[in-house]
Amino acid sequence: MYLGRVVGTLVATRKDASLVGAKLLVTQPLSLDLKPIGEAKVMVDTVGAGVGEMVIYTMGTASRNAAGKPEAAIDAAVVGIVDQMDIDRRWVEELPDTAGKGEQTFAE
Amino acid sequence: MYLGRVVGTLVATRKDASLVGAKLLVTQPLSLDLKPIGEAKVMVDTVGAGVGEMVIYTMGTASRNAAGKPEAAIDAAVVGIVDQMDIDRRWVEELPDTAGKGEQTFAE
Amino acid sequence: MYLGRVVGTLVATRKDASLVGAKLLVTQPLSLDLKPIGEAKVMVDTVGAGVGEMVIYTMGTASRNAAGKPEAAIDAAVVGIVDQMDIDRRWVEELPDTAGKGEQTFAE
Amino acid sequence: MYLGRVVGTLVATRKDASLVGAKLLVTQPLSLDLKPIGEAKVMVDTVGAGVGEMVIYTMGTASRNAAGKPEAAIDAAVVGIVDQMDIDRRWVEELPDTAGKGEQTFAE
Amino acid sequence: MYLGRVVGTLVATRKDASLVGAKLLVTQPLSLDLKPIGEAKVMVDTVGAGVGEMVIYTMGTASRNAAGKPEAAIDAAVVGIVDQMDIDRRWVEELPDTAGKGEQTFAE
Repeated sequence: MYLGRVVGTLVATRKDASLVGAKLLVTQPLSLDLKPIGEAKVMVDTVGAGVGEMVIYTMGTASRNAAGKPEAAIDAAVVGIVDQMDIDRRWVEELPDTAGKGEQTFAE
Repeated sequence: MYLGRVVGTLVATRKDASLVGAKLLVTQPLSLDLKPIGEAKVMVDTVGAGVGEMVIYTMGTASRNAAGKPEAAIDAAVVGIVDQMDIDRRWVEELPDTAGKGEQTFAE
Repeated sequence: MYLGRVVGTLVATRKDASLVGAKLLVTQPLSLDLKPIGEAKVMVDTVGAGVGEMVIYTMGTASRNAAGKPEAAIDAAVVGIVDQMDIDRRWVEELPDTAGKGEQTFAE
Repeated sequence: MYLGRVVGTLVATRKDASLVGAKLLVTQPLSLDLKPIGEAKVMVDTVGAGVGEMVIYTMGTASRNAAGKPEAAIDAAVVGIVDQMDIDRRWVEELPDTAGKGEQTFAE
Repeated sequence: MYLGRVVGTLVATRKDASLVGAKLLVTQPLSLDLKPIGEAKVMVDTVGAGVGEMVIYTMGTASRNAAGKPEAAIDAAVVGIVDQMDIDRRWVEELPDTAGKGEQTFAE
């Protein structure tokens, strides 16, 4: 799944029948620093997410599973609203040469 | 789904049998600012979209679902014509460190 | 589907059984300006394409559908030979702030 | 599969029913040099991985297979904890023009 | 499929049951010039490939097909060892405005 923030909504009157009745959210992917990264996507809402909320979303078959519509024209869905994220910055900012928990051998 | 604009059409006489009769649209992915981003793709039309229209499109299985042809050689389809998009710029341009609706803890 | 040009062929004697007998084409993805973009991929040919031809190709399940081998180790296939592409440059080079056919509202 | 390091955890109270009970790990993709590359993803844990561990993860259907939930809203899963990685640097840093084991002909 | 070179091996004792017994190869994607591009991936070997060999690999369902394990936690597999690759450089380095074999019309 991916981190994102709902930044808007989209209306399409002419659309695939499987999308009728679905709330379409415009979601901006986020980095670990909660900065926008990459381009916004259009998703179906499956958890009642609102504009401004930080969410997790899925792509592909997982999004149709979330929508409960395996035959739908859906390839992205908001599947959770983030309450808390705990990041251990040691592993993000300064990655040691050895994994600490394991061993990497680089043959020459 | 992704935001895009139909920018042209494509004709291929020799093609997979599952594509015969399909209208092939050349679609340019768009950013939230409606600027072109990434490379154009070739898609089947499932909603009667025309050149110049802003659309949403799907990739992969969702596109075959939209075309109603799960066995086809299709991996991209236009599935909706955008009527309106409402973006809350606060969440796009200045993303706060905290989500506002949730809590992110960054352990040191 | 994606725009590409067949730039070569590839021979692999030791390969997955499902690839035996398949013609493997090296295909370079193309931009709308017919410039190479991204890295070349190796694909099965399903339409009798030759080196130098501009083609459309598919990725994933669609490529196995094109090859008529849903159980194969195939994830890319050439599925059409491009005869003509008509691009309306107005929509590629200068994208207006409004879609012209629709309405985008950006809340502040 | 992809190389990554678990850098944190994520809590989402409101989420797809198929995610209830799953431990959600925030995982940072790694390069061969164990440097962070690309953006972190949110994954279900299927092997008891902890923060700081170097892991391999899968995307798409493979992640639902790992979780044993083909119908779930899952598109990424940690599927192994790396004990050792042996890299032959000759092939990473100085790639010869010929493959050594094979033959590449570039027609002019 | 994609061009790559096997650059190493990886050992993970704790891993998904479907990966037990599989040889895990670290494979570096290659450009047409046989230069490393993008990040290395971890793959199951299905053709007896060794470190240093130039290979083709597949992603997604195709990799599970190659491994003969549709239910496995596999999303990448080496599926062929490259013996020869013939590239027509004319089409890689100087792409003409017209495809030569077809016709592109750019409406103004």
